[in-house]
Amino acid sequence: MDQQLTGWYTERSPMWPGQAFSLQVEESILQKKTKFQKLEIFQSTHYGKVMVLDGAIQFSEKDESSYQEMITFLPLNSHPNPRRVLIIGGGDGGVARETMKHPLVEKVVQCEIDAEVIEACKKYVPSMGCGFDNPKLTLLTGDGSEFLEKTEDKFDVIITDASDPVVAADEGGSETKDGPAVSLFNEDYYTRMKEKLAPGGILCCQGENMWLHASLICRLLKKCKSIFPVVDYAYTCTPTYPSGQIGFILCSKNPETNFKDPITVWGEADADDLPLKYYNADIHRASFVMPSFMRKALKQIE
Amino acid sequence: MDQQLTGWYTERSPMWPGQAFSLQVEESILQKKTKFQKLEIFQSTHYGKVMVLDGAIQFSEKDESSYQEMITFLPLNSHPNPRRVLIIGGGDGGVARETMKHPLVEKVVQCEIDAEVIEACKKYVPSMGCGFDNPKLTLLTGDGSEFLEKTEDKFDVIITDASDPVVAADEGGSETKDGPAVSLFNEDYYTRMKEKLAPGGILCCQGENMWLHASLICRLLKKCKSIFPVVDYAYTCTPTYPSGQIGFILCSKNPETNFKDPITVWGEADADDLPLKYYNADIHRASFVMPSFMRKALKQIE
Repeated sequence: MDQQLTGWYTERSPMWPGQAFSLQVEESILQKKTKFQKLEIFQSTHYGKVMVLDGAIQFSEKDESSYQEMITFLPLNSHPNPRRVLIIGGGDGGVARETMKHPLVEKVVQCEIDAEVIEACKKYVPSMGCGFDNPKLTLLTGDGSEFLEKTEDKFDVIITDASDPVVAADEGGSETKDGPAVSLFNEDYYTRMKEKLAPGGILCCQGENMWLHASLICRLLKKCKSIFPVVDYAYTCTPTYPSGQIGFILCSKNPETNFKDPITVWGEADADDLPLKYYNADIHRASFVMPSFMRKALKQIE
Repeated sequence: MDQQLTGWYTERSPMWPGQAFSLQVEESILQKKTKFQKLEIFQSTHYGKVMVLDGAIQFSEKDESSYQEMITFLPLNSHPNPRRVLIIGGGDGGVARETMKHPLVEKVVQCEIDAEVIEACKKYVPSMGCGFDNPKLTLLTGDGSEFLEKTEDKFDVIITDASDPVVAADEGGSETKDGPAVSLFNEDYYTRMKEKLAPGGILCCQGENMWLHASLICRLLKKCKSIFPVVDYAYTCTPTYPSGQIGFILCSKNPETNFKDPITVWGEADADDLPLKYYNADIHRASFVMPSFMRKALKQIE
């Protein structure tokens, strides 16, 4: 499938063979090769602005809340006092934007590998790029894994908002190559994060799709269990991600952490104030409930 | 978008403009015009066999469990004694197959409008069509709404497994026309179902997608609330349905019914025995938990 439908953007990848998702394009806004990846932004007809990296849709304005709010508040609301937050990746600004909504957060450090993604979102997608406009944020560019090795800071929460470890190597999406996020999917990375978490610290990483990558997910979770006393898996429903869902890997240094039951519970009035489009305490709890096939797969690594 | 990607099946519809989902085709199995609709079955490369009616994907073997099990066991397990079950639509056999797994079910009547869909699934997709091979089943062909008007039987549970009310009128998917299921989406139909429900009876209908059709869903639920004392809304995650989700409208004649808390709870061992790939009691409960945007929409019709 090296073809394109005229007037549409079609996403296909060897990470999800045999299926493709297309969005109708109203206007192309940006197409460039950065130092790290191919970056595209377009105005879609029904999903607002859309950003694509190396052929994989990163967000659409219509449904990004279901991802950005969940990857942020699942860990933040599971921590009693998330004052210092580190964001690895998240170059579109969505996680920074959400993190700043949490009233306990005092200081956010973000390390994104690709400065051109940050600049593009600030310039072309202010609904996302606005996340960078906050005096609590220290924004750095560089490899997240290397930053973790060097930094002497400690964090209460580390959120890794990475693209997939492997990406399409060609237009047709039939060959793979390592993407810029590959270093964020190995065991060393999790060990480094643990070292830079303060006592009781919590991490949350993008965790792929259970219909497509159950065995990859289980392998990652098994590694995490060898490193952290508490490990859990949740998912959210994001229509423009492959197969309409994406998961989250959650780990805590505190053996008492129960990710399934948020410590910070906002009432409905708070949710309206914050404002949140997707996240609430009930959907936090529900996001850990697995269908039977995934529950069975997860049992095998217990 | 009246183009096709060679070797792929692309689904597009005016019901979900600006987005399209494609599956790679290994082999076309059937393409015909029935008396009611365009029927296609193909072998996909990664999703097993796939059936399409009037341009809308009805099931793939890979993920049909997430729909068939949920539309069946949400109502059956909310009823204390679901002995007599009526299935309207469900021509692929999936709901009949699941219904027969419930140990309390004694008698099932099914009324599907299109006999050619039934025959095709029996012949080409035995994993679905096997649902029709059960002595408890009385299988009729005809309009579901008319059947309800005429029948003198009463049922404990009525499940409506219908395609969408409007369908694509042309290959390009830009014009709409009424589909064969249009009569299953109006108020009269719900009133007729109520008349044919035994005391304490429950119904469950395919209820569209909250990202695409929140206002249609709210309108339908509002009508239902004027007819039934208990009405609720749930959803499941089905990757090959538009935007990866589909909802269910649940109504009960019994004011004590709490759909959110199943009466029949199968343990994990039972789930392995039955066997169920998707449904379990926890995901039953979780399927009623709405993201904030939908919770807000539903509040407005309370």
